[in-house]
Amino acid sequence: MASPEIEALTQALSKLPGLGPRSARRAVLHLLKKREGALAPLLNALMAVEKNLSNCSICGNIDTTNPCAVCADPRRDARALCVVEEVADLWALDRSRLFPGRFHVLGGRLSALEGVRPEDLAIESLVRRIADGGIDEVVLAMNATLEGQTTAHYIAERIERFPIRITQLAHGLPVGGELDYLDEGTLAQALRARRPVA
Amino acid sequence: MASPEIEALTQALSKLPGLGPRSARRAVLHLLKKREGALAPLLNALMAVEKNLSNCSICGNIDTTNPCAVCADPRRDARALCVVEEVADLWALDRSRLFPGRFHVLGGRLSALEGVRPEDLAIESLVRRIADGGIDEVVLAMNATLEGQTTAHYIAERIERFPIRITQLAHGLPVGGELDYLDEGTLAQALRARRPVA
Repeated sequence: MASPEIEALTQALSKLPGLGPRSARRAVLHLLKKREGALAPLLNALMAVEKNLSNCSICGNIDTTNPCAVCADPRRDARALCVVEEVADLWALDRSRLFPGRFHVLGGRLSALEGVRPEDLAIESLVRRIADGGIDEVVLAMNATLEGQTTAHYIAERIERFPIRITQLAHGLPVGGELDYLDEGTLAQALRARRPVA
Repeated sequence: MASPEIEALTQALSKLPGLGPRSARRAVLHLLKKREGALAPLLNALMAVEKNLSNCSICGNIDTTNPCAVCADPRRDARALCVVEEVADLWALDRSRLFPGRFHVLGGRLSALEGVRPEDLAIESLVRRIADGGIDEVVLAMNATLEGQTTAHYIAERIERFPIRITQLAHGLPVGGELDYLDEGTLAQALRARRPVA
């Protein structure tokens, strides 16, 4: 059996999503064999991140700078604000490079089951950001789940008093989606939101 | 887009076997969200390992101690030596707790294709270990591949002059193996090595 240090490393890695005990062991072996090429870089990267990790005081994103790289980016349109449930959603939308504005991370979704109430999410700070002005449009980019949509509706009500456009992501057929494979919910959405052929 | 530190961390993680760019990003997010619960432990484990990582000067195992935990274990039978291709194989056999003896890691297999010659493997050190005496049996635990078996035969020839038992892992049906799903090679091995029903 390996030394406690190596066991501890395997343990720590196996906790990562996508890595089980077996793959963690493979990963450890890889790191041990490639000390310079893999272990050192990972170690340095982890240290660099750990040193100055923080939540963005503006949008709630996690980054090594505060404000985060997204909020600090001057090329972004401060007048458009995209509200997402999780940091992961922010990253996904940001990767797509499709949204030119800023973001706001709620830190979850309203859920009766999990007992998540409005005060558990970063909704007050969102309202404050909008109240501070300078924002023309708020895009509610919640997940297309029951809880996501409930959250979207709640937020829409909370901010409808402001003179801003409130929009949400379109629902319908995903690209490449085949009708006979899609669930009724999606088909219903797509049909309800049908548009005249341009 | 995220800060360079986080990008670097994603890069480093995506290099691990079993983790692609997407899963690496998920892993990073997990680490960032669980700073105390996941990031810190992983960082500490990596540092602990990196600090005193070394190849065992006896068997070639990778460990944080030299001699490695296996070679240093007094409960192990020093008279039985199991020769494996890679550290991964040593770990696999060691996990199974089935072999009570010590190990010797060759660091690969003879391969005409990849141009791996005997002098590229830890064969000399193996011969020396055996020549030093105190070993009764050498188990050649190479992979059941053409190259693995070639390596086993080569080593068997190199050490046949010593007064020791030279054995190799049995080949045949894997546990749970169904005849009509097994390859001809395995079936041939199983048939050739058939044994009288006890």
